[in-house]
This record gives sequence, structure tokens and C-alpha cells, in this order.
Amino acid sequence: MAIIVQKFGGTSVANPEKIKAVADRVMGHHRQGNKMVVVLSAMAGETNRFVDLAGQMQKIPDPREMDVLLSSGEQVSIALFAMAVKAAGLDCVSLLGDQVRITTDNMHTKARIKSVDSDRISKYLDAGKIVVVAGFQGITEDDDITTLGRGGSDTTAVALAAALQADQCEIFTDVEGVYTTDPNICQSARKIDRISYDEMLELASLGAKVLDIRSVSLAKRHKVPLHVRSTFTDTEGTWVVEEDKTMESMLVSGVTYNKNEARITISKVPDTPGIASRLFTPISDAGIVVDMIIQNTRAGDLTDMTFTVPKTDYDRAMELIEKIADEIGAERVSGDKHIAKVSIVGVGMRNHSGIATTMFHILAKENINISMISTSEIKVSCVIDQKYTELAVRALHDAFNLEKENQPDKE
Amino acid sequence: MAIIVQKFGGTSVANPEKIKAVADRVMGHHRQGNKMVVVLSAMAGETNRFVDLAGQMQKIPDPREMDVLLSSGEQVSIALFAMAVKAAGLDCVSLLGDQVRITTDNMHTKARIKSVDSDRISKYLDAGKIVVVAGFQGITEDDDITTLGRGGSDTTAVALAAALQADQCEIFTDVEGVYTTDPNICQSARKIDRISYDEMLELASLGAKVLDIRSVSLAKRHKVPLHVRSTFTDTEGTWVVEEDKTMESMLVSGVTYNKNEARITISKVPDTPGIASRLFTPISDAGIVVDMIIQNTRAGDLTDMTFTVPKTDYDRAMELIEKIADEIGAERVSGDKHIAKVSIVGVGMRNHSGIATTMFHILAKENINISMISTSEIKVSCVIDQKYTELAVRALHDAFNLEKENQPDKE
Repeated sequence: MAIIVQKFGGTSVANPEKIKAVADRVMGHHRQGNKMVVVLSAMAGETNRFVDLAGQMQKIPDPREMDVLLSSGEQVSIALFAMAVKAAGLDCVSLLGDQVRITTDNMHTKARIKSVDSDRISKYLDAGKIVVVAGFQGITEDDDITTLGRGGSDTTAVALAAALQADQCEIFTDVEGVYTTDPNICQSARKIDRISYDEMLELASLGAKVLDIRSVSLAKRHKVPLHVRSTFTDTEGTWVVEEDKTMESMLVSGVTYNKNEARITISKVPDTPGIASRLFTPISDAGIVVDMIIQNTRAGDLTDMTFTVPKTDYDRAMELIEKIADEIGAERVSGDKHIAKVSIVGVGMRNHSGIATTMFHILAKENINISMISTSEIKVSCVIDQKYTELAVRALHDAFNLEKENQPDKE
Repeated sequence: MAIIVQKFGGTSVANPEKIKAVADRVMGHHRQGNKMVVVLSAMAGETNRFVDLAGQMQKIPDPREMDVLLSSGEQVSIALFAMAVKAAGLDCVSLLGDQVRITTDNMHTKARIKSVDSDRISKYLDAGKIVVVAGFQGITEDDDITTLGRGGSDTTAVALAAALQADQCEIFTDVEGVYTTDPNICQSARKIDRISYDEMLELASLGAKVLDIRSVSLAKRHKVPLHVRSTFTDTEGTWVVEEDKTMESMLVSGVTYNKNEARITISKVPDTPGIASRLFTPISDAGIVVDMIIQNTRAGDLTDMTFTVPKTDYDRAMELIEKIADEIGAERVSGDKHIAKVSIVGVGMRNHSGIATTMFHILAKENINISMISTSEIKVSCVIDQKYTELAVRALHDAFNLEKENQPDKE
């Protein structure tokens, strides 16, 4: 008898019919003898409705109250789900974040889970009930409602799976799994059967939207096998698991891209100790997350600093940087919002040299200029002109043969 | 510095503009130096939406899950209210039933409050915050969400006022207060300035919809002064308070009516001991609430039993009674759904005889036949043909001079 945690997103529970379909699916697993825990998001559209209402009350809605508002969305979907199961004659009970007792820190609207109490869920499972839990929400030690931010329901599911020592955690979504690249821009994109936590982490942080990075990181830490699959079909999706030998035979597992960053360059900065700190402290104080940073030394103790920030923070970052540039005597500040970051990811890179060079060569062959480069053990990212994004993705996907399952020793 | 609890219903918080108007009103009282606790219902329309959604999931929605669903409505309105106050620069914090800790029994969808913990609210009030509490909801000792049924938010407000030893509890609604009778059918209906708890209890139980009977009963028990008034004007409404001398000078305080009952008569029942129990046990076992019961003894150890039930339970009650009538050898069962109960209420009746007779006389003068009569210390109710309801109400209102404030010794 396996314990299975299944998470369904907002589009999977968008209306009563879809909720019933999800309930049917879960009940099927229950009838096969599994202990089922279901995590649901708010019905699609609800969160937008709440954000709109909040915006009418307060310019920047109070974060504590925003969490009270937003968390009511999951409350609706879990109650309706439990009714659907009961209507079909099985037993089911719904639990909110505070009823499970999912304790978080008090960073409203983007709280982090500190602990999960699995006692109440276990008791219900032992009593033969299907348990449905509100995703995305928790409670502080002071009994204030919190929400976990974007992708929060995935995190709830993985945290519950870890606490319950579940056999697997299935993330149901509107795509069939994790792809070698975005199928919308590359027709030969292929669904990946198995991928390591580390590769998935890189893909998620580099722009793949299918899984939230925190949930992958949590799954890795607790060794929870994740299965990303489609709500609307029965086919197997992508398993995100611990790295194994077969994965290493793949040089590159996926190609990803991100068009949501902008580049800022400060030219001819006097290269004195502490200058980077001087530049980036005000940026981070403003809550702006800097991604890539590159420093080019020029002659005469001058240096150029280039970095990327989310496009939505570009104007604010430029304002701050122009002020500082003036203070420290830099020559000029320039920026570019029309960039894209294209990345290749694969654990195979660890054992193969020259993958980065191959990437540069492929881009050069397409006459695509690279303006920034960043590498890690298992990924290479290049910043290019945004208009070449699709071209670059397709060229890399082809050149690394990602359309083929080139894993001769795969189980 | 007074502690004031104010409750606003669904129509008062139906949209962002109305919520802001309510917030303005509350902030005015706060600025005058009062400690403000606000109880809100769900935005108008939300409860119907939830009932409709639940109906699509399960024929008779599971009561526990219905409460999870319904209670999300107040969660939305309190969060939006708190944002409105914060946007105006004052401090405010929202609390759900379980955060206050409003403990109830576990009768889902119609739970009763067992205790209210006022500590958290008091702490916030002392810190200068306006506190907004979700009406209508509580939590069982096992940490399950409950709702308090129709008029539940009124009950929440009074229970909080009692626990906080508030100076007053104001119930804001869409009418100006409690009227001598329904202004829709009697143009000379007059708003009552002060009324006793007991009279209000009778009026509420006899059909006046402005206040829920449980909240009046709770206010009476804890001596909480209730003020029923309009959300949309600043005029004083009706104070529901302890009985005082001035009230006794009024023979009749109000005329009320109820068209939601039906009459059932069982004729020629053998009059043996235990027959009433035999008749009414199956009815109450079926959860049907019997209101008036009248027994007429005939010659030859036979009796006629007449009683009223809610119109919605009429068919079920008839079915049950026909079966029993057959078993006990009663001659026949008849019923009438076209009845109305017209009542007069007043604490003055205690000291004046003949009020009932006056009522019968007034109805007789209008050629209205009385089919059932029921009296208590402070009310007389007559069942009449439903088509005469408005005529009877107007005639009684006129005859007892309710359009005049005929209280010469009024303070």
C-alpha cells in the first residue's frame, strides 16, 4: 500500500466538471489500494479576481491581508473536491494549511515552510479517507495565514510527500511533462522520461516553467520522487529523481530560454576594492534580484560591469545605478531590455569537456553574437539579442541531437 | 473610551466601494476614541454562488465541507476591509473564527457558539488597531470549521460584544431599524426607538426578519445593548435593551405576520393517553419543527388535533401523519397551505387584560375568520386565511394606534 501525493493546478480544477474528473482519477488510485493525499490550487481565475479586488482597496495591498484573501481560493476548491468524492461514495476530508499544520516563516506572500505536521493526515489515511489539502498556504507560529508565492502548491505537495514519507509525488499540469525545450518554438522537442533533481533545478531556474524551483529543491533534499504529468491524459510524464548512470550518457538534457531579463552596463568604473559592493548593495536593498554579473577589466584601473535584472525591475535599477555611477565617477550607464538568455543543461557535462565551446560554435554558425556568458558544473548560459531566441534554441536542440533518445544503456 | 462592536451584512459589503464606505464609517468612530471591532458577512451573492457550486458537486452537500466552502466568503470581505483601512492610514487586522477562537459545537451548518476567547482581539485593540472579524464562522474543539446558520453574523457580533464586555453592539442592515410592522404592507408603520429583549425575541420568532432570534437571546443573556440601524444613513435606529417602565405604557409594540407555515388537522382521533406523543414523535424525528398545536375535544372520547409546520415541510409531514392516522384509527387528515399567522407583541400586555379580546374584535370587524389562536405573556397570534394578511396587519396597526409614539412618560 503506497502513499501517493498528487497535486493539481488551477486549470485542472477550473470548474465543477474538472473537479469531478480529478476526483475520479484520485479515486481510481485509492481503489487500487493506495493512500491518497491530494493538493489543490485555487480554481483558475480566482487568484486574478482576488488580485483585482485587492487592487481596488489598496495601491500596494497589505501582505498579511493579501494572504488572508488569496488563501480563501484553495479553501473553495478543496471543499468542492471533498464533496465530489463523497458524492461518489468514498470518504474524504479537506484540510487547510493551518489544520494540517504547515508552519511557515512570516514572510507574507512568499513564505517558506518550516515544518509540516503529518499526524492528522496520517490518522485520516489510516481511517481509509482520501485527504485533500489546500495548496499554497501555511500558518505562522503566531497563527497568521501565509501563502507560499508562485508555484506554492507544488511546494506544499512535495513538503507533504516528504513529511509523510510518500512513495511518490505527482505534479499534474497542463503539459505532458518536462521537455528537452519549449515545444512551442521547437517542433522536435521531446518529452524527457527521467531527469535528475540537479538538472531540473537548473532548467527551472533558467526559465522552464513546468515546476517551481523550490519544490524541486525540497524534493532533492528529501529524495521525494517527483512525477510531472498531464491532468488530461494517462500517459507517463517525466520523473524527476536522483541522478543515475544512464543520465550521464546524455551530454545535454535540455535547452531553455528566458526573455524576462534586461541587461545594464556601467562603463569605465574606477576599479577600487569594494566597488562591487558599492554598486550592488542599493540594488539588493531595493529587493531587486541580480542574476548574471560580468566584470571586464580595461586598461588604466578601469573596469566595465554588466549584469542582468528582471525586466520588471529594469527602470528602478537604472535609476539607482545612474545615481551611484555619478557618485563613483563611472563614465556612463547603458542598458538593453531586448535580450534573452539561452541555456543548455545536462549532468553529462561534468564528464565531458568542450560542451561550452560547442555551444559557442553553434551560435556563431548562426551569426548570433553572445554578449554575456555564465557557466556552472551542469549548465552554460549565453545572453543574446532577443530576436534570435527561437533560432538559437532550435539550432542548439538540433546540434545536440535532443530529438533522439540517445541513451543506449537506458534501463 | 468605549468598546463598540459593529456588524455589517452582505449588502453593506457587496463591492469594493461599499466596503470602503463601511471602513470610512468605522474609522470615524475609531478617530473619536472608540475601540472598534467590526464583524462582516460575505459579500452579497457569494453565498448563493457557493451553494450553487456545492449543488453541482453533491446532491446534499456534505455539511463539514459546506462549512469549509461557505466560511471562505467572510474571509474575502474581512481581508478587503482591512486593506481599505490600511489604505486610509489606520492600522487594522483581520481575524477568522478560528483565529479569534470562537469555539462551537460540531453541528455543521448550524453550529452554536460555546465560547469566545477575547484575548487576541483585546491585545490588538490595546495596540490601537481596528479589528475585523469574519462573521458566521467558528471552529470545533477538533479544529474543524463550522458555520452558525442563518443570521450567524449577528450572533458572532453579539457573542464578541459579550466576551469583550463591549459598551454596545450595532447591527447595520438595509432597513432603518425595527418597525411596528412591515412598512411594505402598512404605510403608517413607524420605526421603534427602544424595544425590550423579550419583545424583540417574540417579533423575531413571529416573522420579523431584521434580527436573528439567537443573537437577541444572546444579547438578553449577557445584557448587551443592541442597536439595529441602517448602513446607508446616519439616523438612529432601534435600541434593543432591558425592559424599562416606559415600555410598559405601550400596550402593543408591534404587529407581525408569517406566511411560511401550513396547517394540518387530524379529525376524530381516539382520545387516549399518549396520543399526542404518538402523533408528534415521528414528526420531530424527521426534523420538522411544529409551531402551534391545538386540540379540540369532541363528544365520545374523540378529539381533533390541529398544528402548523413550515410550508417547506408540509408534504413530508402530511405523508407521515396520514400513515399514523391510519394506524390509530383517526377519521381523516386535512391540510391548508394558504394560511398566515398574524401576531401582536408588547410587554404592556402583562399589565393589561383584554388585549387578546380586542384583537379578536378587530379581526371580526373586518370579517376575518380565526382558525387557530396561541398566546404568551407578551404576544397573541391568530392563524387566518392567507389572503387577509395585509388587511389584518393594517387593521391591527391602526386599531392599536401604533403609528403614534403614544408614550407620554417616555424619557
